[in-house]
Amino acid sequence: MAEKLKVGLLGYGTIGSGVIRLLTQSGLAISERVELVKVADIDLERPRPVKVDPALLTMDAEAVIREPDIDVIIELIGGIGAAKKYVEMALDLGKDVITANKYLMSLYGDELFERAKKSGSRLLFEASVAGGVPIIKILREELASDQVLSINAILNGTCNYILTRMEQSPGLSCEEAVAEAQAQGLAEADPTLDVSGMDTAQKLSILIRKAFRTRVLPENVDLQGITEIKNVDVQTAHEMGYRIKLLARASKEGKSLAVWVAPALIPADSIMAQVKNEFNAIMVNCMAHHEHTYIGKGAGMMPTAGAVVGDLYTLVSGRNVLTSFAEKRINFPVLRRSEVKGRFYLRLTVKDQPGVLAKVSSALAARNISIASVVQKENSEDPRRGVPLVIITHETTVGQVDDAVEVINPEPIILEPTHIIRIMDVL
Amino acid sequence: MAEKLKVGLLGYGTIGSGVIRLLTQSGLAISERVELVKVADIDLERPRPVKVDPALLTMDAEAVIREPDIDVIIELIGGIGAAKKYVEMALDLGKDVITANKYLMSLYGDELFERAKKSGSRLLFEASVAGGVPIIKILREELASDQVLSINAILNGTCNYILTRMEQSPGLSCEEAVAEAQAQGLAEADPTLDVSGMDTAQKLSILIRKAFRTRVLPENVDLQGITEIKNVDVQTAHEMGYRIKLLARASKEGKSLAVWVAPALIPADSIMAQVKNEFNAIMVNCMAHHEHTYIGKGAGMMPTAGAVVGDLYTLVSGRNVLTSFAEKRINFPVLRRSEVKGRFYLRLTVKDQPGVLAKVSSALAARNISIASVVQKENSEDPRRGVPLVIITHETTVGQVDDAVEVINPEPIILEPTHIIRIMDVL
Repeated sequence: MAEKLKVGLLGYGTIGSGVIRLLTQSGLAISERVELVKVADIDLERPRPVKVDPALLTMDAEAVIREPDIDVIIELIGGIGAAKKYVEMALDLGKDVITANKYLMSLYGDELFERAKKSGSRLLFEASVAGGVPIIKILREELASDQVLSINAILNGTCNYILTRMEQSPGLSCEEAVAEAQAQGLAEADPTLDVSGMDTAQKLSILIRKAFRTRVLPENVDLQGITEIKNVDVQTAHEMGYRIKLLARASKEGKSLAVWVAPALIPADSIMAQVKNEFNAIMVNCMAHHEHTYIGKGAGMMPTAGAVVGDLYTLVSGRNVLTSFAEKRINFPVLRRSEVKGRFYLRLTVKDQPGVLAKVSSALAARNISIASVVQKENSEDPRRGVPLVIITHETTVGQVDDAVEVINPEPIILEPTHIIRIMDVL
Repeated sequence: MAEKLKVGLLGYGTIGSGVIRLLTQSGLAISERVELVKVADIDLERPRPVKVDPALLTMDAEAVIREPDIDVIIELIGGIGAAKKYVEMALDLGKDVITANKYLMSLYGDELFERAKKSGSRLLFEASVAGGVPIIKILREELASDQVLSINAILNGTCNYILTRMEQSPGLSCEEAVAEAQAQGLAEADPTLDVSGMDTAQKLSILIRKAFRTRVLPENVDLQGITEIKNVDVQTAHEMGYRIKLLARASKEGKSLAVWVAPALIPADSIMAQVKNEFNAIMVNCMAHHEHTYIGKGAGMMPTAGAVVGDLYTLVSGRNVLTSFAEKRINFPVLRRSEVKGRFYLRLTVKDQPGVLAKVSSALAARNISIASVVQKENSEDPRRGVPLVIITHETTVGQVDDAVEVINPEPIILEPTHIIRIMDVL
């Protein structure tokens, strides 16, 4: 019997409770190989879903990290304040670290791996992206012998729940769906990080670092959130055989990468379109393995705790986990937003009067944008608020569409800023 | 720079050609760590999709295995004749073995791992199940720290292509769809292994051994193929909001396992229902990770070759691959076919005359089988061949349904044996 790996846990919240349950209460094989030695949190009083032996509890995280007996630090604090300091400290002391912190990994992953390399420690972060799906392990191991051509992913369960509800309930606004998600415990009191797409961009940044060996910071991802999506968009998409998903995409385009996070119309009969509610999905297209898709819960106590404990298993099985974030950085150049190609859904809000379509279509034609179809909806409620006019384009670039919309928006016939949604026909 | 791992390849067919392409022509990182030293095949003359240096070719497989310089044998011969002998010989000599052979692994996996254990060699078989999806690795590693509750899977691309075509083309018979699959190169000249469900049972046996640590030989899997599926079944299912898939299922039921391979009606808006053509899918439901689904190509040159090369990567990265088929065998008892619960679709072929439904429904009532719905189709073509009568049951057991059908079938109003298809409402 090998000696047990000694674990110190920082952060006794929901995920931490799940980890404690798996390690101490579930009777899994892993609990024979691992011993939970200390649990640190700044608040030891509030009630938790899973109890732990009070003798393990402490408010002194640094003492846990310094404890010579402890081999592995699990960081579940989140953010880049104390969490960053503790992870750095643990790595410098040669301790292995497991983290669920996407913010930290997307911003400082390379620097943390440099520290780990110096001290010979290992850093694992499966739970930082799509908790219920071992996508980091898959990208690290299986696909290290293959070449990734593209990733399409649904990485934010909150947004996916909101868009699912808007499709199921004609008329339901984005704000109302957010309120429902909050009532379900699927959205934070301040949902900005989710609905802005920033949470998705952080996770995409981590996936790109692994899959394409390229560093793209979240702030450099071309980003569009879901707050401008109206129910009419979701229903119009539905009528045209599409669903709207908040999609994260990175793809090789020649020798460059196209990278974006944005709502997109995807075919209703595609696998990704069936990914509902709080589920995540990652579709990887590779040279050898071709297209394959992984679907599971992206968050929640047990899926995320399972990912953390999966990393513990990787450590106890004594395998040589790679100590660089990805073997060699390639750093493909990233296309500018304006250069990225695609088809687009444009929702204009126009005055209900003659000549509107002629004006709009000539503005598009001036940018060489070819129209594939037009849907004009009646809006009986309040004619002063205008009618939605939906235009689907043939393939063009984001730059051409941005330019055309810049010309169209100031026109007096346009009552609201035109909303642009991407279309992904093949998924 | 570590010394290169020396590889001997047995079987220069389609998959072998794919492996050669990945190792010698693709410029992947793996080719810096691995050297292909010998390629053996009984036929060196026939044309191949990928060329190899003629100096590597030999007809003497045993000499390749004995070559002291060679560390790893890749077995791509198939079957349990020469392939079994060569794998045993290589393991006994302490060579690591990678195989794509589901027949061999499902029948002799435990015995081969015993040999591997004795000589300290390692045996990897990712390509034996769902080539494009690293499901063996996932079950071995990530889920070793979790507990599997059920597996639902589509494991045969040929059958899935046939059922997809039958749904797309009303009136297309199973035989006609098989002929199409053969023309597409997706079915063998003799498709029996695929359409009987036996290929699926072999793969399910391997998955059960990993996921539930239980040995269920393919011949002991409750097995029903797709040859009795008529187009009217596929279309009736479609009208009721279902699709028919050849499903492999293993689930914990109390302290036992329920195990079967059979066509099943699954909800049309489920993820598994969107798995079309030659794609495979595996949905694993676990205690911690909850439900997660993996979808990819199950066969074909590059996906399968990618799985083989993925195993090579596992070997070169020097990790301690478990040398037992699964750590400890638990051997859950397997429920008898008659004990397995479910809802059922019964397609009866009846004379178009009064009193038929009364007779059938009383036979079902005598077995306590409750009817959920009835669909009777008109059949204008030839009244002498009868009309299809479809009955959907509430939950009952396979045993009750088998017994009821045994009573119903000999009735003079029944013109053809009644066909039973399972229904899986939650997927």
